[in-house]
Amino acid sequence: MARSVDHQRRRMEVLAAARRVIVRDGIEAATTRNIAREAGCSSGALTHYFAGKDDILSSLLRHSHEHVRRRRRERTAGVRGLAALRELLLDSLPLDAERTRETRMEIDFWSRGLTAEHLADVQRREHAKLRAAIRRRLAEAHEAGEITLPRTPPPEVLAEIAAKGTPRAADRPAVPEGEDPPAEEPGKEDGPPRPQDLDAVAERLLALVDGLSVHLLLYPDRLSRAEAERLVLAELAALAR
Amino acid sequence: MARSVDHQRRRMEVLAAARRVIVRDGIEAATTRNIAREAGCSSGALTHYFAGKDDILSSLLRHSHEHVRRRRRERTAGVRGLAALRELLLDSLPLDAERTRETRMEIDFWSRGLTAEHLADVQRREHAKLRAAIRRRLAEAHEAGEITLPRTPPPEVLAEIAAKGTPRAADRPAVPEGEDPPAEEPGKEDGPPRPQDLDAVAERLLALVDGLSVHLLLYPDRLSRAEAERLVLAELAALAR
Repeated sequence: MARSVDHQRRRMEVLAAARRVIVRDGIEAATTRNIAREAGCSSGALTHYFAGKDDILSSLLRHSHEHVRRRRRERTAGVRGLAALRELLLDSLPLDAERTRETRMEIDFWSRGLTAEHLADVQRREHAKLRAAIRRRLAEAHEAGEITLPRTPPPEVLAEIAAKGTPRAADRPAVPEGEDPPAEEPGKEDGPPRPQDLDAVAERLLALVDGLSVHLLLYPDRLSRAEAERLVLAELAALAR
Repeated sequence: MARSVDHQRRRMEVLAAARRVIVRDGIEAATTRNIAREAGCSSGALTHYFAGKDDILSSLLRHSHEHVRRRRRERTAGVRGLAALRELLLDSLPLDAERTRETRMEIDFWSRGLTAEHLADVQRREHAKLRAAIRRRLAEAHEAGEITLPRTPPPEVLAEIAAKGTPRAADRPAVPEGEDPPAEEPGKEDGPPRPQDLDAVAERLLALVDGLSVHLLLYPDRLSRAEAERLVLAELAALAR
């Protein structure tokens, strides 16, 4: 038992060393040799704990995601709907040192995942969980009357934007005099949320926080943490309007 | 003269070889040795054309961005405002093989830029240009009456969302009977666009296309190119409403 606890402790020390190497020097510096040196052991000793570099990297990615999920569970404990959605989204932004390190690794892992299937697979499963959580919170917020889900515009509106980029009221066919304007689509705000609207808003919010995360790390002189936070809150304010 | 043309041609061949290595194997594989092999020459021969690996990578990044800018100039030739904005945003998405290669490299360069200042500097300048172009097109579209710039919500609305996540009409102070509701802020839709609103929309659109680009490459099973395109057009439709 004591042996197994020690084994687990050593594994965690190696992962912590790997994280320090990546955050400081980038993922290309995360060789078994550099990781072993950072952990204060020999490359040979690492083989007691990990099958190799690939195993270290995917274990680190999984471990980091478990940590993030635990923190998100704490941040959303006892809240639902829009409040929970806000916690999930703000927690995804690099607004403090810990999350900056996480985002730093995440961008490295995106890059590496494009050629390393074992990493891409971990990322896909994790991203699917976050997306499902956001979608569920959106549905809760909609059910509680906290938000209005914007309807995905009908194909003809998108086609108009795609074709001309200038959809102005003047370009639309006027309603002939004496006729009523066409009724709103029935059930616009009623009933359960439409899956396609939930999908569209969830994807938009996820893309926004991922894009803002990249900009915060790469262009900190241009985008401040406070501004990024305001942009996410403004998105939620627009849904809550 | 002929010699200089040949020199330039060889440089371009080396850059093309470096791009193939990165797109196929990732940026960590882009060593001078691998690039030389891909280009069909010796590592020594490379030194006639580039000072080293760093020089090759930053030249490749600059060259790729010049190519993208040229394509965007062509796509926006003769259009302004919303139509030009649409071209800029859709061109930033990996919707075909060429732009998928570009996005592939971009994500690699984001990762590398976090530790390599000479690359981060190229990225910063390029991103500032794209952001300025988007901002200018937004201002044109606003001036032409094609879009309404959403106002950045006032601090108290954001504070409410930040504090509770549940800003519902019922929570707001009702207007006392017999009094008029407060007037809309004067000049809400008139006059030149406010800089902070242009900044907020430009940043949101940029973050959206960068986030969608990551998702398209990493999670193609979840997000299709057609859906990503629809999401961007829907953002423009919301502005044009």
